Amino acid sequence: MTKTIDVLGLGNAIVDILAHADDSFLKDHSLEKGSMTLIDADQAINLYNDMSNATEASGGSAANTIAGIASLGGKTEFIGKISNDQLGDIFRHDLKALGVQFDTPAQEGGDPTARSFILVTPDAERTMNTYLGACQNLTKGDITEEQIANAKVVYLEGYLWDPAEAKAAFKFAMETAKKHNTKVALTLSDSFCVDRYRDEFVDLVENHVDILFANEAEITSLYQVDNFDDAVAKLKGHVETAALTRSEKGCHILHNLSEVTVDAITTKVVDTTGAGDLFAAGFLFGYTQDKDMETCGKYGVICAAEIISHMGARPEQSLKNFVADKL
Amino acid sequence: MTKTIDVLGLGNAIVDILAHADDSFLKDHSLEKGSMTLIDADQAINLYNDMSNATEASGGSAANTIAGIASLGGKTEFIGKISNDQLGDIFRHDLKALGVQFDTPAQEGGDPTARSFILVTPDAERTMNTYLGACQNLTKGDITEEQIANAKVVYLEGYLWDPAEAKAAFKFAMETAKKHNTKVALTLSDSFCVDRYRDEFVDLVENHVDILFANEAEITSLYQVDNFDDAVAKLKGHVETAALTRSEKGCHILHNLSEVTVDAITTKVVDTTGAGDLFAAGFLFGYTQDKDMETCGKYGVICAAEIISHMGARPEQSLKNFVADKL
Repeated sequence: MTKTIDVLGLGNAIVDILAHADDSFLKDHSLEKGSMTLIDADQAINLYNDMSNATEASGGSAANTIAGIASLGGKTEFIGKISNDQLGDIFRHDLKALGVQFDTPAQEGGDPTARSFILVTPDAERTMNTYLGACQNLTKGDITEEQIANAKVVYLEGYLWDPAEAKAAFKFAMETAKKHNTKVALTLSDSFCVDRYRDEFVDLVENHVDILFANEAEITSLYQVDNFDDAVAKLKGHVETAALTRSEKGCHILHNLSEVTVDAITTKVVDTTGAGDLFAAGFLFGYTQDKDMETCGKYGVICAAEIISHMGARPEQSLKNFVADKL
Repeated sequence: MTKTIDVLGLGNAIVDILAHADDSFLKDHSLEKGSMTLIDADQAINLYNDMSNATEASGGSAANTIAGIASLGGKTEFIGKISNDQLGDIFRHDLKALGVQFDTPAQEGGDPTARSFILVTPDAERTMNTYLGACQNLTKGDITEEQIANAKVVYLEGYLWDPAEAKAAFKFAMETAKKHNTKVALTLSDSFCVDRYRDEFVDLVENHVDILFANEAEITSLYQVDNFDDAVAKLKGHVETAALTRSEKGCHILHNLSEVTVDAITTKVVDTTGAGDLFAAGFLFGYTQDKDMETCGKYGVICAAEIISHMGARPEQSLKNFVADKL
């Protein structure tokens, strides 16, 4: 079957609510800087009450990546669960407007569309507090074999391991991909997420995944080592392709037994939300255009540079033009 | 009675949906650049379908002004009608988070919270398309005499003349203000809005308003003259205080029979949405702190400079600190 989609993303469908906050706010609310914490509906109300005035933008890790690939000119599809509400309408609009295929039906009633309350501290670091809402109702029934077969790459976020039904959907997507010569890409998402599911994630990475995305904190957490080089040594040879991001140090790519380092792009850092997601967008766009690893990495660091230069995790300009300017 | 509120704002309670657009998009959709056009629910759906990916932020002209005054450290209250929905929650949160008193109950069911679909063209000009929704159900029953009496200034937006019930609420607020030594401030809002209600607005300005805000297009439209100087000549002596904004030329203030010009602050212009609203915020903050006209004007141009340096019509930083830096 001819594959008409470059990357199919499967992830939590979330609208971000972004506000500035001081370090003291994180401390007062016992929030771990840089992490993603799951919160329930009551916690969401309480946290929002305490937060300063905010702006809203579509988010969700895999959805951000898919939006980025679409903005680069790639052919994309997304699967995720929204509710039939105003935030769900916003989430759907922002993918469709970029040309992303997004046909997962919204649920009628029940939990509302997911929100992530994102606090951006003066150091530009983001701390995320996510109320999963409707995301918990994504099931493998929302995925067809044809969707998986039709994609060159299926991209999965580690966060999907949190809602039980979504985890089953994740596994179904991964198994179906194997049958149809669809590459499986995974982002480890968050070092705390890795903590929650370490053994399962090691098995995923070493036995099921073709392309791994992780940052330094995530990959050292996965292998419970103290430094990056030790993590690389543990990972090497166990995954076909791994793109490991290191913030201002750029990225380090493992591909079979070869290694490539790509420097970061210097930019003013306003908000790091979405940095990893947009790195993955650039990398996967290059990958599906059959670019070499170094070029894939360059696309990645350029897209990450765009996203951290402003608030929010969706590009503010055409990434196609932005990459053409910077390459 | 001691007045515990500096400025009470009465306006349409709107959430902005902001997206970039080319000039060709405006042309294809027959939109007049720089204007505010009212649209119905079906037009809103169609326009949103055609718009590119967007971000959301609380808006509404008078609400933006009130948010700005609160950010400057003023004591503020807002009256406006939201619905009991997700966008209404966002609108309320963003005022409360700034310390604004906002007790108007949300309507249960019926029309949703208002949205303004704002297209920002490459020249940073904004073109607004507003679906009024719940705003149409603001009535004078939503205002108490005590609220008006308790404020030094009641600030009214010309846009309130569009929904019939809100117009009645506007008039009630104005008449009640006269009884309680509360100054009446008005923004003409939009030159097309002035076109719709010219005779009534002239009567308002010359016979009922203490402080007038208008930009060059609005004041020349009001008096149907070709240039700014002719408009000033017509207005002079007919209103106690008028703060007339002229974009990069700064502002011109009439106060009884004296005139003061204040230069604009040079800044990178990203999005002009809210420029007039935040000018009014700075001016009214100064006014209620008993500052002289030149200082009021300076506060105004500084606040306007902050808002046009980024997308959206709500300040991204503490205006109190920003003004202290720039003054």
